[in-house]
Amino acid sequence: MKNQPNCSWMSPILDRLEELHRELAGATEGDVATYIPELAKADPRWFGICLVTANGAVYETGDSRQPFTIQSISKPFVYGLALEDRGRSEVLAKIGVEPTGDAFNSISLDPRTGRPRNPMINAGAIAATGLIEGKTSQIRLKRMLAMFELYAGRELLVDDAVYQSESETGHRNRAIGHMLRNFGILTDDPIPVVETYFRQCAVSVTCHDLAVMAATLANRGTNPITGEQAIRGEYVESVLAVMGTCGMYDYAGEWLYNVGMPAKSGVSGGVIAVLPGQLGIGVFSPPLDPQGNSVRGIGVCNALSRHWDLHLFNRSSVGNTAIRLKSTAAEFNSKRVRSALETNVLRTSGACISLYQLQGNLTFATAEVVVRNLGENADAIESLILDFKRVMTANESACRLFHDVVCKFAAVGRAVVFTHLDSITPFKRYMKGRLGSRFEELFQVFDDNDAALEWCEDRLLARILPGLPGGEAVGPREYELFSGLPPGDVETIVALLDRRTYQAGETIINAGDEANELFLLASGSVSVILTLASGRPRRLATFSAGMSFGEMAIIDRAPRSAMIIADSPVVCDRLPLEAFAALDVTHPGIKIKLLDNVSRGLSRKLRKANRELAVFE
Amino acid sequence: MKNQPNCSWMSPILDRLEELHRELAGATEGDVATYIPELAKADPRWFGICLVTANGAVYETGDSRQPFTIQSISKPFVYGLALEDRGRSEVLAKIGVEPTGDAFNSISLDPRTGRPRNPMINAGAIAATGLIEGKTSQIRLKRMLAMFELYAGRELLVDDAVYQSESETGHRNRAIGHMLRNFGILTDDPIPVVETYFRQCAVSVTCHDLAVMAATLANRGTNPITGEQAIRGEYVESVLAVMGTCGMYDYAGEWLYNVGMPAKSGVSGGVIAVLPGQLGIGVFSPPLDPQGNSVRGIGVCNALSRHWDLHLFNRSSVGNTAIRLKSTAAEFNSKRVRSALETNVLRTSGACISLYQLQGNLTFATAEVVVRNLGENADAIESLILDFKRVMTANESACRLFHDVVCKFAAVGRAVVFTHLDSITPFKRYMKGRLGSRFEELFQVFDDNDAALEWCEDRLLARILPGLPGGEAVGPREYELFSGLPPGDVETIVALLDRRTYQAGETIINAGDEANELFLLASGSVSVILTLASGRPRRLATFSAGMSFGEMAIIDRAPRSAMIIADSPVVCDRLPLEAFAALDVTHPGIKIKLLDNVSRGLSRKLRKANRELAVFE
Repeated sequence: MKNQPNCSWMSPILDRLEELHRELAGATEGDVATYIPELAKADPRWFGICLVTANGAVYETGDSRQPFTIQSISKPFVYGLALEDRGRSEVLAKIGVEPTGDAFNSISLDPRTGRPRNPMINAGAIAATGLIEGKTSQIRLKRMLAMFELYAGRELLVDDAVYQSESETGHRNRAIGHMLRNFGILTDDPIPVVETYFRQCAVSVTCHDLAVMAATLANRGTNPITGEQAIRGEYVESVLAVMGTCGMYDYAGEWLYNVGMPAKSGVSGGVIAVLPGQLGIGVFSPPLDPQGNSVRGIGVCNALSRHWDLHLFNRSSVGNTAIRLKSTAAEFNSKRVRSALETNVLRTSGACISLYQLQGNLTFATAEVVVRNLGENADAIESLILDFKRVMTANESACRLFHDVVCKFAAVGRAVVFTHLDSITPFKRYMKGRLGSRFEELFQVFDDNDAALEWCEDRLLARILPGLPGGEAVGPREYELFSGLPPGDVETIVALLDRRTYQAGETIINAGDEANELFLLASGSVSVILTLASGRPRRLATFSAGMSFGEMAIIDRAPRSAMIIADSPVVCDRLPLEAFAALDVTHPGIKIKLLDNVSRGLSRKLRKANRELAVFE
Repeated sequence: MKNQPNCSWMSPILDRLEELHRELAGATEGDVATYIPELAKADPRWFGICLVTANGAVYETGDSRQPFTIQSISKPFVYGLALEDRGRSEVLAKIGVEPTGDAFNSISLDPRTGRPRNPMINAGAIAATGLIEGKTSQIRLKRMLAMFELYAGRELLVDDAVYQSESETGHRNRAIGHMLRNFGILTDDPIPVVETYFRQCAVSVTCHDLAVMAATLANRGTNPITGEQAIRGEYVESVLAVMGTCGMYDYAGEWLYNVGMPAKSGVSGGVIAVLPGQLGIGVFSPPLDPQGNSVRGIGVCNALSRHWDLHLFNRSSVGNTAIRLKSTAAEFNSKRVRSALETNVLRTSGACISLYQLQGNLTFATAEVVVRNLGENADAIESLILDFKRVMTANESACRLFHDVVCKFAAVGRAVVFTHLDSITPFKRYMKGRLGSRFEELFQVFDDNDAALEWCEDRLLARILPGLPGGEAVGPREYELFSGLPPGDVETIVALLDRRTYQAGETIINAGDEANELFLLASGSVSVILTLASGRPRRLATFSAGMSFGEMAIIDRAPRSAMIIADSPVVCDRLPLEAFAALDVTHPGIKIKLLDNVSRGLSRKLRKANRELAVFE
């Protein structure tokens, strides 16, 4: 049954869209727009619904691939391009953002300044088109089409028949163009701008395109299917704000009250609705209500908003979601295998090393909880590890709060260490900008928690056990495996050992090797490495001089399960399997002692593993 | 250094509020309202800022506890009470929701129906006051005060001097009352309603109160500090929608564009702003701009929105946050200790038991990702465990999607099992309502993943190993610990055993006991139980007949670390520590075999623990 890529039988979401399509397909209210002859040719039965999530899942039904011209739905996107080209303040100087109670084709200019009330009425939209950068009309049109294509994720064309029809009948819009020129809102010949506006309205799209474009706005400007950025994230809020207050003509208040999503409709029967961070909806059905909005389009948006609780203002608290897990080095440790004494120090004093696993989107509200929690626990924290592995985004506000935490912790002599920052690039950039010359000193980063924990543990152990030797070569009497054996017995077993040296980086054991010996580490350190499915290596353990390794495969009579590599120049004493087995008969007392020590070692590791598992469960 | 409850030195958020307070305290623009003599007494230097998060953290600075009268900020709250008392459609029939470009005290009635354009202008607010249920003005006022108190979390009073002042000068509002009566929007004597309205505007609050009230709206109607519900969650979206489009008088479009939060201001100098799901802001500073909004209030909201990226429409994708972790029974298992054969079956075939740990707020957008993921993997899933431990809320839309999943899985013979549902009460209620008579059959719930995994594993093992005996008593030759021992040696060691029986529920070992024996389980099953800090028991392992337990403490020479309890009537053979030790001398060959078996058992457990740890890391 596996590997059937299409499991659409499982989607209750598509089920619901199809059901809604059947329910509304029979509606007969509304009339197809006739003010342009080409639009009047639309079939009133055409009806498509498409929903695209902000992470790119597509649900569509009905005539979702029927082409039609975008008309007024082009307005918010062109407004966004104007914002990118000119910046917010220049655009605001030319086009207001206040809703008007007037109809879609009203002229609505400020009587004093000539500034159109908002960019969703024709006057404001034409003004926005006039703000697009480009030396010639051709260049401006090309840039505009390229922008639409980034939103839709495919090549788009202007429907010439509709454009001609618009141009032949567009006297009112030409009048608006001249009024805008009169007030200096347009600064050049208004006619080419109005013609570009006609072409902009005649871009041919489908209901599927509209939903992808809406989802791109929901995804802060990045097309969730192609991954391409259609508009800089910082301008998305402005585009959505004008859609929110002015997108549905004189129906805006009721729309925000009932549907609760910024939206835009067009006379060809299209509607888009955007739920920021979540999804975009596209509906296409030509019959319009008296306000000029698609009857079925409004019906679909209303029904989906109710059915799936999509209202923008219907939100539960997000705050407590950012801290995935908290642990300390008293319960969870690095993979470096510690001596019994060191293990004991970590268990009793490791609570001052705190690990916070963070997750999701870090914004003010989610980061606030983390920062507050850190503040409340700051007195007990000596070293802090902030794990960003499951953080998806961190906005500037979150960066700012973490910057402040780093500085405040540094000021009282505590270390803050970050891990898994690779995918959160703006974070590092922000820190660099703010910390300046103190960046290298204060911004500590490790690849993973294991490395960060080891660094923090080493600091703590160096403080609590300052005189303790470490890293030196040991003689056979100091091998943990021989602990409790009388000197004579040590001599007996040393005679069975076979000494080997390895270069740093050399492979001592390969996964899959037959297990023929047990290793005693005389000097240097070795690590057990598992290669993950992703190809990335994962450290399972690191042993230092005096410890033994490779005993589990001996006990299990199984092939080696992981690779062991010399971290440094290494000297090992190897106890061959046959010699170990022969002890049963020749020196049972020694064998019992060795097995006792092996069992105790396993028991200690098992207790550590169980303690660490308890952190996660 | 520990146990200092006040770590406010750590809060960069409070730092920022204080800094902003200093920056704006010097502003001299704006004039204190004078249209009521009492308001004119306000000190223009009063300036408080308070921010309260949707989970109850409070940050405040300046004159945040200076009392003043709430004035127009009462309007959205009273509108919410009207919605609760009368329902949305009755309220909508009497009060519109369209913004007007007019000033705050404009009459703005629909010329035909007399319906006020929206509830944020005085006419709409008085109409809303008239919709409050209650036989007398006293009762209505009392109910209204009680409502305000739930929002603020403390007792509130009407400022009688301000009320008198309002009443003495409120001729325009009386005119509005009579107009509303004329159109039948008010159905009784309008004067008591207008007097109630004056009292409503004269409720005395502080900036701290305003922020808590705003945070209550941000938290879907539940006061985040007291935990009390001030308004039913379903009406919050409507209150916020009218604030969003009409809350800042004729400044609404620009406000939503720049600040991006539903807000309301009052002539006494208060402003509230709400970021749904995140936080509420309260500012108090009496000098007003020509639109009637607090100058510093607007300044604070603008600055905070920019500084902390609070704009409603500036959102990253939330979708991928709901699946915390996915694992299968091939890598992570219940705590029931399985035989080598069963362990092998689970490792090779356990991938068809899927465990999804979910988290956060389940809404359409977050649940969609889970449901889609399940659909894509459905063919490989035989049993599905959905863990709700870290789910904070599930709205009706999410409930509906999971209901659909349960039905679709059941239709193709797959089991769906839920765990940790205790705190998600609406979920169970929804399922009961929708599944009806099939509820008991289809809605499988376990307390925790351990129990759910064991149930799924048992089903799988029963299918793959159908003839396998289980639960029967075993003889000493079948003890795993004696595996590989010749029959004669088994007889030798059996002579050392001491048989004991236990009742179901009886304690076999207590945590802290001295470890004096090793147990061999002849019949029944026993569980190792750790009592968590919360007092809840956690199962560490369950053993069945043939297995041994209690050997780790013997090896470590440590006291017992957990309690062991008989799950059923149990027969055990106990091997005393001294007898086990004496084997070194009397029967070293037996001792070596036993230690070998102990080591192999520990090794198997350690491999399992390491495999499970890898799931989490």
